[in-house]
Amino acid sequence: MSAKVWLVGAGPGDPELLTLKAVRALREADVVLIDDLVNEAVLEHCPAARIIAVGKRGGCRSTPQAFIHRLMLRYARNGKCVVRLKGGDPCIFGRGGEEAQWLRERGVDVELVNGITAGLAGATQCAIPLTLRGVARGVTLVTAHTQDDSSLNWQALAQSGTTLVIYMGVAKLSEIREQLLAGGMAINTPVAMIENASLPHQRECRSVLTNMEDDAYSFALKSPAILVIGAVAACKTSSLWEHGLPAMGSEHTA
Amino acid sequence: MSAKVWLVGAGPGDPELLTLKAVRALREADVVLIDDLVNEAVLEHCPAARIIAVGKRGGCRSTPQAFIHRLMLRYARNGKCVVRLKGGDPCIFGRGGEEAQWLRERGVDVELVNGITAGLAGATQCAIPLTLRGVARGVTLVTAHTQDDSSLNWQALAQSGTTLVIYMGVAKLSEIREQLLAGGMAINTPVAMIENASLPHQRECRSVLTNMEDDAYSFALKSPAILVIGAVAACKTSSLWEHGLPAMGSEHTA
Repeated sequence: MSAKVWLVGAGPGDPELLTLKAVRALREADVVLIDDLVNEAVLEHCPAARIIAVGKRGGCRSTPQAFIHRLMLRYARNGKCVVRLKGGDPCIFGRGGEEAQWLRERGVDVELVNGITAGLAGATQCAIPLTLRGVARGVTLVTAHTQDDSSLNWQALAQSGTTLVIYMGVAKLSEIREQLLAGGMAINTPVAMIENASLPHQRECRSVLTNMEDDAYSFALKSPAILVIGAVAACKTSSLWEHGLPAMGSEHTA
Repeated sequence: MSAKVWLVGAGPGDPELLTLKAVRALREADVVLIDDLVNEAVLEHCPAARIIAVGKRGGCRSTPQAFIHRLMLRYARNGKCVVRLKGGDPCIFGRGGEEAQWLRERGVDVELVNGITAGLAGATQCAIPLTLRGVARGVTLVTAHTQDDSSLNWQALAQSGTTLVIYMGVAKLSEIREQLLAGGMAINTPVAMIENASLPHQRECRSVLTNMEDDAYSFALKSPAILVIGAVAACKTSSLWEHGLPAMGSEHTA
């Protein structure tokens, strides 16, 4: 049997948002390498597996990526069923692509299992539809955190007409605000800042672009949090539109 | 007990990509309203429920939205546990936001359950990471199909630096190509066209922006399919980069 590693998305936090395929991978696992942001409740599906914490949280003590790579490789070559468990989805800001490449180059079979990403789950729990006919024909997921100089064109994002969902943005609110305003986004564009998306202690702070930094400060917003920026961020459970935004077409009020 | 409707994402097609929460909702369901694009294999979780097909496929005979609304409302008010099952995620081009609004305005409790969206699953199955450090700091999901005049700024999308994932684009390849080229996107930008994402009969056609219409024709690409446009669309299982795109940082080659 050839060496194999599962790169599995554990979802946004709520352990019920795990997929059936992820549960199957965990049940078969001998070794599970688990990231910081994964809710440990999902480990109920692999009670006999060896659990290794390999977290890498911004600014804190962390496990080098090269060490994680070697650990996966060693266990896989020893015939162990290895599950690498990541928060959200492995290929949405999860380095799943890099880890898969590294392993495949060394002859290891890799199977990726998608997960629900935090931005989507957080918005849904706050009754914000990321796309909405007549309002937002698309959604853009971006990370504010970067270790390289990859080019994110904030002006283009401001003008794209899509809902923006920004990950790892808590420390960069000022920069994000300035870039989007400079890109022509309206000062009163609705913003929702969602902490601990999908978990029982999820908190939401609603604001508008120009005030979001001040409001986040008053709210004591902490990482991990996602930002949802765009007209749909005014949606609330109690009334879809806080400020009387677009009426739906007649088809929807029959 | 108050009336309640579950708006549930059934995922992209692979029945193993259903979430545990979706399975719980199905198990509790008395009535399931199911869309065309949902894989009926997921109905194994609700063998006793009444199943009602309410599909709406572009160009074909379809169930009016107002009828679906009234059906959900009637069953919910009669005390039935109603599950509305949608392909992918209910709030990514799924009208989940509209249906939730309509029901909540009539006093019905709504619970939304996220699902894996087809664009994400298709890309993952083709070994394409939608985000990749140094290459794509974000991903934009958009629909080419629209019944309204909502403004999608193709020029901004072409310049955003994010991977583009386009839903319902098979009939609009020519328009998409022209708009992105006019927006300044390079003619040789990699494109992956993925039919029946995540299903056993998934097919993929790789191309570049300027040739995508011709290649889709030769390939006989059919709906439902998603388009992935951007540098990451050159990734393949056999070698991450077909044309030797960016080398990863030294951290990744230890």
